[in-house]
Amino acid sequence: MSKKVSMKDIATELGVSVALVSYVLNGKFTNRINVETAEKIRKLAKQHNYRPNQIAKSLKSSKTYTIGLIIADISNLFYSSIAHFIEEEANKQGYNVVFGSAYEDPERFASILDVFIAKQVDGLILAVPEGGEKYLERVKEVSLPFVVLDREFAELDRSMIVNIDNYGASKVVVEHFQQQGFTKTAAIALKTNLKHLQARKEGFMETSSQALGLREPLFYEVLEKDLEQEIERIILHAVQVEKVDSLYFFTNRIAMAGLAVLARFDIAVPEQVAVVCFDEADAYKIFKREITYVQQPLKEMSQMAVQKILNPEIRKLKKIFQTKLIVKESTNQIIDNEKL
Amino acid sequence: MSKKVSMKDIATELGVSVALVSYVLNGKFTNRINVETAEKIRKLAKQHNYRPNQIAKSLKSSKTYTIGLIIADISNLFYSSIAHFIEEEANKQGYNVVFGSAYEDPERFASILDVFIAKQVDGLILAVPEGGEKYLERVKEVSLPFVVLDREFAELDRSMIVNIDNYGASKVVVEHFQQQGFTKTAAIALKTNLKHLQARKEGFMETSSQALGLREPLFYEVLEKDLEQEIERIILHAVQVEKVDSLYFFTNRIAMAGLAVLARFDIAVPEQVAVVCFDEADAYKIFKREITYVQQPLKEMSQMAVQKILNPEIRKLKKIFQTKLIVKESTNQIIDNEKL
Repeated sequence: MSKKVSMKDIATELGVSVALVSYVLNGKFTNRINVETAEKIRKLAKQHNYRPNQIAKSLKSSKTYTIGLIIADISNLFYSSIAHFIEEEANKQGYNVVFGSAYEDPERFASILDVFIAKQVDGLILAVPEGGEKYLERVKEVSLPFVVLDREFAELDRSMIVNIDNYGASKVVVEHFQQQGFTKTAAIALKTNLKHLQARKEGFMETSSQALGLREPLFYEVLEKDLEQEIERIILHAVQVEKVDSLYFFTNRIAMAGLAVLARFDIAVPEQVAVVCFDEADAYKIFKREITYVQQPLKEMSQMAVQKILNPEIRKLKKIFQTKLIVKESTNQIIDNEKL
Repeated sequence: MSKKVSMKDIATELGVSVALVSYVLNGKFTNRINVETAEKIRKLAKQHNYRPNQIAKSLKSSKTYTIGLIIADISNLFYSSIAHFIEEEANKQGYNVVFGSAYEDPERFASILDVFIAKQVDGLILAVPEGGEKYLERVKEVSLPFVVLDREFAELDRSMIVNIDNYGASKVVVEHFQQQGFTKTAAIALKTNLKHLQARKEGFMETSSQALGLREPLFYEVLEKDLEQEIERIILHAVQVEKVDSLYFFTNRIAMAGLAVLARFDIAVPEQVAVVCFDEADAYKIFKREITYVQQPLKEMSQMAVQKILNPEIRKLKKIFQTKLIVKESTNQIIDNEKL
C-alpha cells in the first residue's frame, strides 16, 4: 500500500489547483469541470489509494454539503419536479439533497425534521404540512438556515417563504373564463386550511363574485380519502344539475382525477365545459383537447430556495413569484351554433 | 443550561427503553412508535437540552443510516415512484435516502457515486446508465453493499440485480395483441444499448416473428433529442403508410409522447390502432380510451432493493420479478363492421 497522500500531493503531481482536486474528489461542480482532467485526478487519487473521509471532513468544516428537502410526496408530479430543480441548483453549488415525504402529516414532518437536524444538514427546504408550523421552532433553535416552499404562515417573515401569488393566479383564471364567454364556473379544491390554498380560493371567490354580481360562486371541496369518487360525483352534479360551463381544478391531482371523469363520461371540452388546471403536466397533452393551465415558475422558485439557504444576502429578499396562464384549446371560445 | 444528559437519563426518567429514546431522537421507526410517547421523549430531551450529534455517532457506529439512490431523473414518473417506495421501505428500517439524478450520463453517475461514497452512505441503489457499469468497481473497492435497479449487466451476478423479466413482458404484449385480433404491431423504443431494454426488444422481435412467420416485425427507435417530433413522424408513418393496427410503447416517456400524437391527430383507439404502454401512469386515465399497460411490481422491487442493502441473507437471493398486463379499452377487440 502506498503512503497516505493529501489532495495537495495530487494537485502538485498533476499541476492543477488543490481546489480543483477537492472539487473532483468531492463531486462538486461536476458540470463545470473538464471530464479528462477530472478522470486524471480520480485515477491518480486511486493509484495513491486516496480515501476522502466526508465525516472527518465534516467535523473539521462543520459542513455536510447536504440540503434536507421535505415535501408532501416525492411521487407527486409537482414535488418530483421541484426535487428535480432543487437537486440541479444544489449540485451547481456543490451540495447534495436528502429528501423526505411527510404526506401532509405534521408528526411525520416533525420526525423527518429531527432526523435531518441530527444529520446536521446545512439547510432545510420545507413544504410544511398543516399543523406542522410549530415544529419550525426546532429548526430555529439550532440556527439552521431554512425556507418554507409552496406554503405560507402568517407568523413567518415573507423572506422565509418561496411561494407564488395564489390570489392573483385565481383572479387571472376567472377573468380568462369571463373573456372567453364562460360565466358559470365551478372550482374544485382539496379541503384544507393551508393558507396558500385559502388565498387561491379567495382569489376565485372574490373575482367571481365581482364578475357575477350577487350570484354565489360554486366552490367544491374534496377530502383526500375517496378523492376519485368525490370528484366524479361533484363534476356530474356541476355539469348536469348546476349546468356550469367551466371547471377550475385547483391542483394537479384534482386535475388528473377530474380530467379522467370528463374522459370517462365523454363530456366535451370545451363545448360542454371549459377547463383550467393548476400546474403543468405532460399528461395534459394526451387529453382529447390540450388543456389551459396555470404555470408556476418551479425552476426559478427552486433556485431561489437553494440560494436562500446558502446565501445570507439572498435570504433577506422578499419576493412573491407570479404565475402565467398557458392558454390552450380547453378554454377556446364557443361559437353558439357549434354548441352541443 | 442544564448539564448534558444521555439517552439513558431520558429513558430512566420516563421509564422507557434506551432503544426507544434512541429511535425517537434519531427519527427511526417513526411509523411504529406511539405519537404521545415520542412527543414525551422529545419534550424531555428538549428540556434537558439534549443534542444528538449524528456525525459523532456515525464515527462511533460507522453507520450513517443513509441509503444513496441514483436514478436517471427524479422528475420522471417511473423514478419518482421508485423513490417513493424506496423511501417508504428505508424509513421502515430506520434509514433515510439521499438521491442523485445521473440523466443517463456515465460521468455524472461516477461523480454522484464518488460523493455518496465520500458521504459514507450505508448502501447504494443504482440505476446505472449505459457505460456506467465500470464505475461499480469503486463501490466494490470500499465494500459498500449495493444493488443495481432496473438495469442489468452481464458481468454482474444476478443476486446484485433487482429487475423484471423484460423478455417475458414483451412476449405477453405480443400474444395479447394476437389474441385480440391485432396482427400488425409497431413497437417504439428509445435508442439504447441498455441490456434490459434489449431484452424487451428481443421479446417483441422474437415473439412477433414466430407469430407472423416471415414478415419482419416493425421496430422503431428514437433518440432522446427531438423525441416528440420523432415519435410524431413514426406514428403517422406507421399508421398511414404501414397500416399497422397496433402500437406498443416501450417506456412511459414514449407512451406520453405517443398518446399525445394520437390525441392531436384524432387517431381512434382501438378502432384505428390498439395501444399497449409500459409502466403505470395515472395520466393514462385521461386519454379518450383507458390504456392497457404492462405493470411492474415497483413496490416489491423497491422493498427488495432496500432489503438487499441491509440484509446479507436477502442479498444472496436471485429473483426476477414478473410483470402483469393490465387490460383496458385500448386493446378491445374490434368487430369488423365497427371498424372506421
